Order: sequence, then structure tokens, then C-alpha cells
Amino acid sequence: MQVDIDLGNRSYPVIIGTDLLEKSSVLLAPYITGKSVCVVTNEVVASLFLKTLKSQLSEKFDLSEVILPDGEEFKNLTTLNKIFDVLLENKQSRDVTLIALGGGVVGDMTGFAAASFMRGVNFIQIPTTLLAQVDSSVGGKTGVNHALGKNMIGAFYQPRCVLADVSFLQTLPARELSAGLAEVIKYGLIADKEFFGWLQENIKKLTEGDEGTLSYAIKISCECKARIVSADETEQGLRAILNLGHTFGHAIEAHYQFQNILHGEAVAIGTCMAAHLSHDLGLINETTVEDIKKLFIAANLPISTREKISSATLYEYMKVDKKVKSGQMRLIVLNAIGEAKVIAGIPQEKIIKAIERAMP
Amino acid sequence: MQVDIDLGNRSYPVIIGTDLLEKSSVLLAPYITGKSVCVVTNEVVASLFLKTLKSQLSEKFDLSEVILPDGEEFKNLTTLNKIFDVLLENKQSRDVTLIALGGGVVGDMTGFAAASFMRGVNFIQIPTTLLAQVDSSVGGKTGVNHALGKNMIGAFYQPRCVLADVSFLQTLPARELSAGLAEVIKYGLIADKEFFGWLQENIKKLTEGDEGTLSYAIKISCECKARIVSADETEQGLRAILNLGHTFGHAIEAHYQFQNILHGEAVAIGTCMAAHLSHDLGLINETTVEDIKKLFIAANLPISTREKISSATLYEYMKVDKKVKSGQMRLIVLNAIGEAKVIAGIPQEKIIKAIERAMP
Repeated sequence: MQVDIDLGNRSYPVIIGTDLLEKSSVLLAPYITGKSVCVVTNEVVASLFLKTLKSQLSEKFDLSEVILPDGEEFKNLTTLNKIFDVLLENKQSRDVTLIALGGGVVGDMTGFAAASFMRGVNFIQIPTTLLAQVDSSVGGKTGVNHALGKNMIGAFYQPRCVLADVSFLQTLPARELSAGLAEVIKYGLIADKEFFGWLQENIKKLTEGDEGTLSYAIKISCECKARIVSADETEQGLRAILNLGHTFGHAIEAHYQFQNILHGEAVAIGTCMAAHLSHDLGLINETTVEDIKKLFIAANLPISTREKISSATLYEYMKVDKKVKSGQMRLIVLNAIGEAKVIAGIPQEKIIKAIERAMP
Repeated sequence: MQVDIDLGNRSYPVIIGTDLLEKSSVLLAPYITGKSVCVVTNEVVASLFLKTLKSQLSEKFDLSEVILPDGEEFKNLTTLNKIFDVLLENKQSRDVTLIALGGGVVGDMTGFAAASFMRGVNFIQIPTTLLAQVDSSVGGKTGVNHALGKNMIGAFYQPRCVLADVSFLQTLPARELSAGLAEVIKYGLIADKEFFGWLQENIKKLTEGDEGTLSYAIKISCECKARIVSADETEQGLRAILNLGHTFGHAIEAHYQFQNILHGEAVAIGTCMAAHLSHDLGLINETTVEDIKKLFIAANLPISTREKISSATLYEYMKVDKKVKSGQMRLIVLNAIGEAKVIAGIPQEKIIKAIERAMP
């Protein structure tokens, strides 16, 4: 199946299915313009899938590869420069195609490398985690972290095609599958009440890695993201709702220095904080908060931080979030399951209280 | 006077005149959207002009500043990160406006910082060198160098406004004024025969820093660049002619490791190489080549390298140029004064011969 991301002359398809890597030569050919392809991946993913991808592409294209170290802590300008090193050592030109084979970190870095190498070259995403398949590989947000904040340096840059092979998820650790489900649940929360209900019924099959159920969840998630991104490519307004729980979540990740916690886990906790805040603001009732927490628990996701963290520290991290405008913190809250909005000017005490309600 | 760069919803004015910095509060106000302004400059420019700019803006805006070390050798990702450091230490958000106060290096780096900080913030150019006023501040090319090539990492990102204050040029060393004239002469060569004739008559006044004569030359140069950039913002075709002499020039700069030679000087030598090549290809006659060389000499610019350099080495550097497509080197040649074109597939011997004709 296929979901089309409609962005005028930057439109592209997300191809979803099983065993796609084995057909990638045929599937990707229409989206590779030149003769040169550089595959960017990481050590872990390379050992699983690089050989298959290379055997698919090596007949038709001049192939080079960059194998990055694995982990969010390497998502920075220094590692980014390693991609440029390889491209320039191989005398690549503007008609090279970069293929990101990996999770969100590989995708974000490869996308930013493609956006900025010679001011922009062709780019394809092959996301290998659920998180990347439903979120980071779709929508064109690319970038790297800075010591003082996550994703602070980057570009809006769209791929030419996304290949979401559900078979990859068989090799994904259960914890990472769950982390991906945090973003899947988010789509139900912000835009699709019916999908939230479907998730309540099917969450067990999803955590067990059932391919048919996962394919459907990925399709609905991508469709949801496609609608929102098409309406607001560069996050002037509506697109911000995709960040439900993310300002809280980023602060939690920053507190842990982006280590020992997965992005999806932080988003799950952050979404619980956002749910508590929405309740405190009188927007949703206690039962709704409980329904949200129950679904996260069923997805094997945390609903509070492991230990007590200083809420003042988290609040400071939140203040450097990209959604802050003229000093005003802007947060996403829920009006109901399936309906989110951006609000500014929430009193600091209310935010602190919401943070503390998702702590042990 | 004003030249408008027509790029649809990314259009912007280049304001040209004397003593503009003293009126910058009024002139820039329409182009600053938020409350925060961060001025990026270098040590040398800061000592000359930063105080005036700050006194103009400090009443209306929250000001911060980044003072970079001076020189092309600092135009890299490491120095770029210093801009992000300051922005994040000051908790700047997406509504910050970056102002580049300086020459091409400051402008290119600040532009790329603006393009990539939080995936894009507002940006104004105040070019303080002739080179920046007629070339690098107009057209949206931003970026940094990589150890293996100049401007290899960057973005197409347009400023909201360019303030070209001709009074700045009174403080510019004669050698840098001449370097700027290399690009001015280029516009005559690629697109405006009449302007080339005007330059032959007025070159002495330009080298002497006559403000009226310089203002006219800047205006015509910006108009020429505006026409070309409007027709081809992201260098798919026509825009490449702006790079007359630049593939040769970049190779010369790379040979000198971007030190002890100014960009404009390298472009002058590179343009002579391109003129020799155009003659060798039967496109222009010997008299035209001599006219071009004479004008460069009158502008106090070099027409050959200081010492003999290995032409094979320069050729290797040329092969990593961004205009290489599928392994084919593409060079700009002249059909006549005022008319340039891109050609590919020139035999290596002919290029080597043209290189050697602009050596002692």
C-alpha cells in the first residue's frame, strides 16, 4: 500500500509493505536521478540489512556507504561532517542520491546532510524502526542536536520517496517497538478518535509485532501526518499539534542527556504530562486521562519518570524549545481524544504541577 | 537607491547608498519581525561598525552578538556552531532575526546559521565589503567550507533585506576593494557589454573609492545578479554563468588552502583562465582576451598566479566543484563580452592548457 504526501512539486510516496527491501531495486529506481548512490546507516542496522540493499542497488548504481556509530548521542555536527567527508572523498557531485537506512537518528542526519551537501541533493528514506516509519521519515524535518537542545540545527527537506518495510520490525527490540507505538497513539490523540479506539482493541497484536496490524497502524499514522504536513509544511501553525507531549518529552530527554531513555518513552511520559495539563485546564476529564495512561501501559510504555526529577530543571529545558515564540511557551493540549490545539500563556505553576503529576 | 530581488514570496530589496548604517534603525525596522536580534560579525568589522549598529537597534530590540574570528579559514562547521552556542545560551527562539555585519565569510555563515537554526529564522545582510555588496549578500547562497572543498555545505536561503552602505568601503583596504571589482567586472563579462565599456572608462575612479561611481557599479551589479537569480534561484541552469572563472578560482584558493589569496583575486586569475579557454575553443578572439586582462590590471588585480602551480593539482581540485554533473566537469565560457554559457565535455588537455596560460 502507499500513502502520498501532497506537497506540490515536492510530493512523494510512502510505500508500506512486507519484504520491500528485497524489491528495492525496482521500487527505488524511479526516485534515483543520477548514477551515484551513497547509503548512510549505522553499525547495528548495517549488520542486519546493508548487504541486501547493496546487492539490490550495486548493479545499476555506483555505490558508496557511510556507517555511523549507533545512538542519539552521535546526532551532532561532528558526526554529520563524517557524511560530508565520505561524499567529498568519493568526489560526489550534486546528482548523488543519499539513502538513509536506519531509524530516526540516521534519517534526520542523512536528511540534513542531503539538504546541505552542495546546498541540496536527492534523498530517500528507508526507515527501519516503527518510530521512523510513522513519524520521523515523513514530513521533511531533518537535523542534528546541539549540546543545549535537541534538533536545534536542521532544515525542512523532503525525501523523494519513503520505503517503510514492515518486515524490518521483526528484528526490532520490543522496547523500541513500544517506543514507536507512542507516536502511533499520538495520532489517535491529536486527530483520529476512531483510530484511538482501534488502538485500544489492537494494542496487544501491535506489541507482538503482527505484520498486518502494524501495516494498518503505519498507514493510518502516515495518512494522519500527511494531512497535517500538507496543510503546514514548515510548522507555521497546525503542524505544531504533531508535537503533543514533545516539549515535555524533549526536556526529559535533555535531562537524561539523550541517553538511557528512548524518544518514544519520553514522548509517552510527556504526553501524560500534557494530558494532566489538559485536565487541569478543564479541557478533558479524569476518565480520559486514565484511558490515555491505560493505552500507554498496554503498549509497555512508561507513564511517569523512573525517579523524581527537579520540575524546575525540566521547565528550564522546555524554555529553549523551538515552539517558544517571543518568550512565550506554546504547548499542545487536548480538547478531547482526537482533537488537539496549541496554547500559549499557561501559568508556570500549572505546567510545573502537570510535570509533577507524571513523576513517582 | 534600491534594487528589488524578485523571488515571489521570498522577494527582498537591496538598499544602496551612503551613511545607511546611521539610519539602520529606520531602514531595517520593517524587516525585523520579532523582538530579538542577534548581530553576527567578526573582530575587524566589530571594531569599526558594531557600536553604531548597536546604538541604532538597542532601543527597539533585545540585542545579542557573536564576534567571529576574521578569515576564510574559520568558515567551517566548528565556527558555525559558535553562532548556535550564543543563540541557545541566550535562549533565542524561532522569531529571532540574525543580522550579518561583515564581508562574504560573515554573510555566508550567518545565512547558513539562519537557514538551519531551528530549521530557519529571519535574516538580514549588512555587507561591509564591495565583494559582499555586489555578490555574496545577494542571491541566497549560504554555507561553509569543508576541508575538501569550498562552500560544500550550505543552503539556498534568502535574506529579508540587504543594506549596502557604500560608506563602509572607505575603510576597506585597497586590495579588498580590487578583489570586489573582480566580481563587478564579471557582471560586465557575462551579461552586460555596455557595463563592461563603462567599467573600462571608470575603473580608476572605482579603485580610488569614489562613492558615486561605486554606487552605480553596485547598483548595476545587483540588478544583473537579480535578473539571473530571479530566473534560476537554485542553480538548475542559467545561474551557473555567475560562476565565470570560479571553478578555476576555487581550485586556486584550495591550492593556497584559502590563505594569502583573496577570493576576488582568485576569480580574476580564474576568469583569465576561462578567457584563454574561450579563445582556445574559438569563441572569442585574442583582442578580447587582452581587453579582459587589461581591465583586471587596471583594477589592480592579478591575471596569473604568482608562481607556477601544478596544473594537474588544480585540475584535481576542479573535479570536486559543485557544478560537476555525473562526472562531467561543466565550465563557464564566453561567447563574447556580455555573453556567457555553460559547457561540458571539454577535453582535459584544453583545460590544462588554459590553466597554464595564466601562470608565470
